[in-house]
Amino acid sequence: METLRVALLGAGTVGSGFIKLLDENRAAFRALGVEPALTGILVRDPAKPRPAWVPRNLLRSDARQVLEGADVVVELMGGTDRAGRLVLDALDQGLPVITANKALLAERWGELKPHALEGLLFYEASVMAGTPVIEPLSGALRGNRTLELHGILNGSTNYIIGRMEDGLCFSEALEEAQARGFVEEDPFLDIGGIDAAHKLSVLARLVVDPDFPWQVVRENTRGIQNLKREDVFAAEAAGKKIRLVASLYPEGGSWRAAVRPVLLPLGHPLSQAALSRNALLYRGDAVGEVFISGGGAGSAVTASAVVGDLLRMLEGYPGHPPLPVAAPAPDYQAEKLEEVEP
Amino acid sequence: METLRVALLGAGTVGSGFIKLLDENRAAFRALGVEPALTGILVRDPAKPRPAWVPRNLLRSDARQVLEGADVVVELMGGTDRAGRLVLDALDQGLPVITANKALLAERWGELKPHALEGLLFYEASVMAGTPVIEPLSGALRGNRTLELHGILNGSTNYIIGRMEDGLCFSEALEEAQARGFVEEDPFLDIGGIDAAHKLSVLARLVVDPDFPWQVVRENTRGIQNLKREDVFAAEAAGKKIRLVASLYPEGGSWRAAVRPVLLPLGHPLSQAALSRNALLYRGDAVGEVFISGGGAGSAVTASAVVGDLLRMLEGYPGHPPLPVAAPAPDYQAEKLEEVEP
Repeated sequence: METLRVALLGAGTVGSGFIKLLDENRAAFRALGVEPALTGILVRDPAKPRPAWVPRNLLRSDARQVLEGADVVVELMGGTDRAGRLVLDALDQGLPVITANKALLAERWGELKPHALEGLLFYEASVMAGTPVIEPLSGALRGNRTLELHGILNGSTNYIIGRMEDGLCFSEALEEAQARGFVEEDPFLDIGGIDAAHKLSVLARLVVDPDFPWQVVRENTRGIQNLKREDVFAAEAAGKKIRLVASLYPEGGSWRAAVRPVLLPLGHPLSQAALSRNALLYRGDAVGEVFISGGGAGSAVTASAVVGDLLRMLEGYPGHPPLPVAAPAPDYQAEKLEEVEP
Repeated sequence: METLRVALLGAGTVGSGFIKLLDENRAAFRALGVEPALTGILVRDPAKPRPAWVPRNLLRSDARQVLEGADVVVELMGGTDRAGRLVLDALDQGLPVITANKALLAERWGELKPHALEGLLFYEASVMAGTPVIEPLSGALRGNRTLELHGILNGSTNYIIGRMEDGLCFSEALEEAQARGFVEEDPFLDIGGIDAAHKLSVLARLVVDPDFPWQVVRENTRGIQNLKREDVFAAEAAGKKIRLVASLYPEGGSWRAAVRPVLLPLGHPLSQAALSRNALLYRGDAVGEVFISGGGAGSAVTASAVVGDLLRMLEGYPGHPPLPVAAPAPDYQAEKLEEVEP
């Protein structure tokens, strides 16, 4: 039995979840002839309290000690600077990297793309966590010309809007979400729509244009920070729900990517997904409409996709290279979602 | 540019759709360095009228002429006898096979399995057509212990029940579905639940037990042929919907696979899928609940998955080998769906 040496960067919520799930999946790895073993776990503070199953003897604050001798790097530390440096160094050395880091993928794609094209980059966990989206778009749906896609890609804003439907004002709902750990350390990443925009750029590069610029997605992004309880109630009175929706659709012959709060009729598939769920509505010319929903965050939910990627990698899969440039279908009329007034 | 020689078996609804979609996807194949070309198209009657884009000069009734020199076999003719012989001959010669044929997969799995384990068998199109199910279960969801799954895997029965909700009796609804071409030549395949049972066996072998016996699924299958308008109305009055649901779940420490009409509460995810759609509800220990819905039949919808498989094959993917045996989670309480009385 060969040993698969896994360098783990980060032991926060998702990192700890990955350690546990990797252990629970030993049989699946053995079925592929390998025994996974962590070379080390990179953390900022080895002394910080962590779940009992995190092996304390493997915690390191020096990246070199973790990366030495690794066969694969699993990056779950987040952020774009240090994580970016470490991931790019590993890729430069020809090591495959599995990451859940949408900020990194969105903002430093120019550097990552050549490695993705080489087949070294796996990132199912970066969009909708363990709910399968990257793999279906990379493969099963590939016989399609993509017409458009719309997604609820951020769970925290969904939770906040849901609590506003219950009668809280925006700041009360945000405070509650923060107290329950549903919001990033910098809440603007969630409520400003940045997290959803990160994920939308990942999808746009994968599916329609490997060079879709992050800055353009960023400019077309509006969050929910100005949403008022009255807006939510008015929507409800009109038989609609407000949701933060990320969309990729044709406009004037080219692709437009936008994130903004919209008013969804109650019968709309995206308004039927439960508040704690993420959801993707995909329309392709051959397959028609496909709807995928599930958890979009959390420890085990995200680790699920990381372990899946690791197993795929062992089978020799080339990760998730972006697909060739695809022009929008001529004359296709995209669904017009009703935007909430800024 | 290398030529990819594709032997096509069958030019019915799905086969014709595949010919068209293959042509529309030439750019995607060229991006992988190959030019697809049909070696021939096996049909029973070359003289039968077909859509204009089907190249009449390639129609053959002699299988040897079609298979000679092929790099890959695409089997869209259906049935288990002749299709089975041709598919198994091709696999024996080491040729990869892409198939949408759930009857063949269900009923002759014992012969097919060794080839699936070798990485030669691709069958995304066999369950829920182009809606991604086989690939997500094979990969992205693989870090999970499967807890249970429930699916609406047959669209024709859904249509018939929907028309009964509108007031038709069973035989009127069936006649209408037949007139619109929604039902197999042998309607018992649909209304008897056999088609759903075929698909459920494919899923059961892929996910929990490579040797799950077809006969056991068959024995646990009840169709909708005895459904009365009164049953449908009574369900509606109770705020429920009747649907033919295929389920795989633990019972008494082992896996049970069953197909039967059940009463779904209106809020249940499976009752929210539109009548023309298929849907799968998957529960895994790490990812939680994932819901996937989309078209489950039709020319382009099915061809979409076949082209996806063909592109995957070119990238060196090992098809869809069954995963290792997985015991049910101890003490897990499966969702109890309310069965319609026989």
